[in-house]
Amino acid sequence: MTRVFCGKHKEFRDKKGGIDALTESYLDNAATTSVLPAAAQAAMEAMTQCWGNPSSLHGRGIEAHLLLERAREDVAAALGCGKEELTFTSGATESNNLALFGAARAKRRRGRRIVTTAFEHSSVIGAMGQLQKEGFDVVFVPPEPDGTLPPEKIAEQVDKNTILVSTMFVNNELGTILDISRIGRLIKRQNPDVLYHCDAVQAFCKEPFKAARLGVDLLSVSSHKIHGPKGCGALYLKKGVRIEPIVFGGAQERGLRPGTEALPLIAAFAAAAKESSQHMAGSRDHICALNASLRARLSDLDGVFINSPDTASPYILNASVTGVRSEIMLHALEERGVYVSSGSACAKGEPSHVLSALGLSRPLADSALRISFTYESTQAHVDALIDSLRDLIPRYRASRRG
Amino acid sequence: MTRVFCGKHKEFRDKKGGIDALTESYLDNAATTSVLPAAAQAAMEAMTQCWGNPSSLHGRGIEAHLLLERAREDVAAALGCGKEELTFTSGATESNNLALFGAARAKRRRGRRIVTTAFEHSSVIGAMGQLQKEGFDVVFVPPEPDGTLPPEKIAEQVDKNTILVSTMFVNNELGTILDISRIGRLIKRQNPDVLYHCDAVQAFCKEPFKAARLGVDLLSVSSHKIHGPKGCGALYLKKGVRIEPIVFGGAQERGLRPGTEALPLIAAFAAAAKESSQHMAGSRDHICALNASLRARLSDLDGVFINSPDTASPYILNASVTGVRSEIMLHALEERGVYVSSGSACAKGEPSHVLSALGLSRPLADSALRISFTYESTQAHVDALIDSLRDLIPRYRASRRG
Repeated sequence: MTRVFCGKHKEFRDKKGGIDALTESYLDNAATTSVLPAAAQAAMEAMTQCWGNPSSLHGRGIEAHLLLERAREDVAAALGCGKEELTFTSGATESNNLALFGAARAKRRRGRRIVTTAFEHSSVIGAMGQLQKEGFDVVFVPPEPDGTLPPEKIAEQVDKNTILVSTMFVNNELGTILDISRIGRLIKRQNPDVLYHCDAVQAFCKEPFKAARLGVDLLSVSSHKIHGPKGCGALYLKKGVRIEPIVFGGAQERGLRPGTEALPLIAAFAAAAKESSQHMAGSRDHICALNASLRARLSDLDGVFINSPDTASPYILNASVTGVRSEIMLHALEERGVYVSSGSACAKGEPSHVLSALGLSRPLADSALRISFTYESTQAHVDALIDSLRDLIPRYRASRRG
Repeated sequence: MTRVFCGKHKEFRDKKGGIDALTESYLDNAATTSVLPAAAQAAMEAMTQCWGNPSSLHGRGIEAHLLLERAREDVAAALGCGKEELTFTSGATESNNLALFGAARAKRRRGRRIVTTAFEHSSVIGAMGQLQKEGFDVVFVPPEPDGTLPPEKIAEQVDKNTILVSTMFVNNELGTILDISRIGRLIKRQNPDVLYHCDAVQAFCKEPFKAARLGVDLLSVSSHKIHGPKGCGALYLKKGVRIEPIVFGGAQERGLRPGTEALPLIAAFAAAAKESSQHMAGSRDHICALNASLRARLSDLDGVFINSPDTASPYILNASVTGVRSEIMLHALEERGVYVSSGSACAKGEPSHVLSALGLSRPLADSALRISFTYESTQAHVDALIDSLRDLIPRYRASRRG
């Protein structure tokens, strides 16, 4: 795949010494993915041909409304739910916030206790912090030191006063897979009235699941993690479950998310969901093989430790290169056209709360790298990463000692 | 300009008898506008070339961050404010909600009174309704029967307990222009601590103003009303003014609006702001002439009454065709390729609260049409509307009697 830098940012490319786009190894797909040509095309068509306001009563509005509803059908099909159960948002951060505030505020008269995990995405952690300020009692269940989190540990925190449980499906830094169906069963056994929200951003189009059969009441997904554009997401809301909106003043999205719909992004999200969900089954073996190869070759390197559990999603691998700070290695790798992440892209500059929750030692946390795949990833990308690390590690460790 | 219907919606076009795109008269620009080619192109480039996550520390992230900040400069320049005063949102509904909840919740310890008008956009009315539920005391100042609203009527409602005033710049259904600078001066004289928010959606790139010199603390604008794509907007927040976020969990937009930025839409919004603001001065005379011609010719028609004030924005004209319900006329006009609105596109199917606030009689309110221009509008569009009305009015009035 050809990836070129923006013409507008030539000064950046030149400064960086002209990265050769053809040999780039982009291994930061948990931060964001490239936009599929079909998705970009769908956005373009919505902008140039179908630019009416879906709320307008005339033909221009009706054609926009039809496009919106067709996109909703496509995303719902990929997600495994009814189209009337899907609300479009500006992204997973909004989906998570809408789910959590919406559920907690709607249920506040029934109880004050909320259960979540200590290694959720920052948009869940952030919303929970605000809910605490609003008087809710939030329990953050920590993961085990190996990065896993047994469903029982979550369920045992649920009592009669608990109104809401929120857990992610796949952890965005470690790849830990949580057993959502089992968590759902256990918590509903403890308290049938509890609402269950799942942040499925890193699972959508990667783990096979049907939202409506997962045992959850609410589920968040994002467009730009599945090769759609940034700025769009969705919230699955199980039929019959009622939550409060966080934005008011309009009938769009059944009043749950007012404001003129972002039709170009929604159309693109639908195209991406369609194509990426088709890739899912076919690319599983390929990704597992890449992950196995990466794990084995990283483990061969001196002083490199794998932080992800053995049972993690094959799409994400977290490893620490002791003796070299994450940011130093990240920039050294990008000089060679290899793109990885130091923890989550959302936590720019701050220490990772996920690695802290594991109880990782400071030297391991400060040298952690996240490598994340997509179905476009290749063995050549892995080779480029390993070759670069093999070359860079001794150099940077030596410079540190010297 | 060539406007074609979506290929996907051929069935709609055929059903409607094949509207000739070349002779379409789109006069519903207050609902939404077509997307400028330069804006669509900017979105396309962001999707295909600059798809990194602006929060990523590596080159792909940095180029995306640079594009984001360049877009912020362009929108800030068009809006007349500093780039650090601009927050991108998913649209004006979110901008208005963020401004109102953000300001009210941040100031709640200083007072409980909020002053607004009775003919604000539904996103302001909706947010105010929720603020009332949260214990705030909201005063809705009604417009005069002629559709105007003197600044004094707003200022006299402001007391020492008032924390926030919110008024629109240009009313979206009538075109009424409010004197924002004067309102700002008067209310700050009554209470220097009051925050002033302005919904400038229908004024941006139409009325000449500089946000930072207008005397407001917060100001909302939208991309899709100025020939950018749907799903993007911005909130001007005067330097030094602090408000609370409504969505939590991320450092994006200085923590005021977390979530990965909608880069394709933001880049497109910037391109539209640049081009549309350049058109502003040059098209004023043209729009005034179109408006004058439309007013004169509508007034010549029997039983047609102008609801907009004489001093309204030339971009919006509201008129009632007595004896023919708005929706009937809207559909009859679209059969002839003429697109107008019955009240606001946001109030699909519901009676207009704006016309109700004027105290308009039921027959006038039920037959109201909104005609709205952009710099692309032509005299031929006005001629097509008038010719159609001249033909349709007697026919529909007769069928009603018959």
